[in-house]
Amino acid sequence: MRLYGYFRSSAAWRLRIALGLKGLARDDAFVHLRKGEQREAAHLARNPQGLVPVLELDDGTFLTQSLAILEWLEETHPTPPLLPADPIARARSRAVAAAVACEIHPVQNLKVLNRLRRDAGFDDARVTAWAAAVNAEGLEACEAMVADRPGGFLFGETPTFAEICVVPQLGNARRFGVDVTRFPRLIAAEAAAMELAAFAEAVPGRQPDAE
Amino acid sequence: MRLYGYFRSSAAWRLRIALGLKGLARDDAFVHLRKGEQREAAHLARNPQGLVPVLELDDGTFLTQSLAILEWLEETHPTPPLLPADPIARARSRAVAAAVACEIHPVQNLKVLNRLRRDAGFDDARVTAWAAAVNAEGLEACEAMVADRPGGFLFGETPTFAEICVVPQLGNARRFGVDVTRFPRLIAAEAAAMELAAFAEAVPGRQPDAE
Repeated sequence: MRLYGYFRSSAAWRLRIALGLKGLARDDAFVHLRKGEQREAAHLARNPQGLVPVLELDDGTFLTQSLAILEWLEETHPTPPLLPADPIARARSRAVAAAVACEIHPVQNLKVLNRLRRDAGFDDARVTAWAAAVNAEGLEACEAMVADRPGGFLFGETPTFAEICVVPQLGNARRFGVDVTRFPRLIAAEAAAMELAAFAEAVPGRQPDAE
Repeated sequence: MRLYGYFRSSAAWRLRIALGLKGLARDDAFVHLRKGEQREAAHLARNPQGLVPVLELDDGTFLTQSLAILEWLEETHPTPPLLPADPIARARSRAVAAAVACEIHPVQNLKVLNRLRRDAGFDDARVTAWAAAVNAEGLEACEAMVADRPGGFLFGETPTFAEICVVPQLGNARRFGVDVTRFPRLIAAEAAAMELAAFAEAVPGRQPDAE
């Protein structure tokens, strides 16, 4: 498998974690988002959305959208599981993942921030303030969604989709200056996750394309 | 089951369709988004994110996030299936659903449009232009993702997560003035879907809270 990503993309980061947890080897290929490589024909042929991550399978099939790829991984490589066994717990883990992937990430990704510069005339300070507010509000809701969960990991003894999405989003939030100590339950889950090699090796600073 | 929704919420609309396709009876409860009822304590107790839809199960459990609820429905009420059988086709259907639910909907929902009014000083015309551009670009990418698919429904003989998300988004796009004839493959899928009662009965104009 080959993963097309960018060190700073938190959606690609999710898949680096998940492939690591599943013990699946991959090649990495890099799409430099700040240089606009995602809008070049070569990448649009992989993904008409012009986004990363894209997972290329050994037969040349391209899979897109990180949540869809997580589900595909779980169906085709079920061990170790990345979702709890109980249907309600599965729904709650997926809801946290979706709260990050639907409600936070797309409202503060590079595409929307560029749109704010272009359509709303935002300067760097206003762009950062927007992204920080979206991360803070979104993570506050995630914290409330899991405040009742005991222990380190959110849904049992091992990480699930929830941590796979929350850990990269906490990284984004820090980058935009959000005080993440306001989210103690999420931070506890992150601390448990970062003890695992799959999480530790997936951070942006350890990727070959990191700047 | 009780579905907390709002006639115009395209995320609630997805669940009206899915529950209809599964043949599951529900009570409807209404959260008036334009009056701000989603931010009242009663609703935040159901969903700390302050969003609809919320599905309340008969034992009082609240499920949130439409994609997570779709997956829960598929796991707990597998017939009729709302995903294809083949793993790659499942991934592609889910990718279209996520392209709508992650990349389009949250960037043009009421919460973000209100943020644009407040933080960027947008007036009605600029808000509508933003929402139209997000819908047009997003649906253009979705069209490209499925342009090679034969037939009416996108992934086989029956509708899947893709149609469940695309049909409501086309409704939003029209409301914001987007020329949806630019997306002929999506429109063909919508036409096939609207022949089914579950889709026809789920449209905003047929809901008890429609204004």
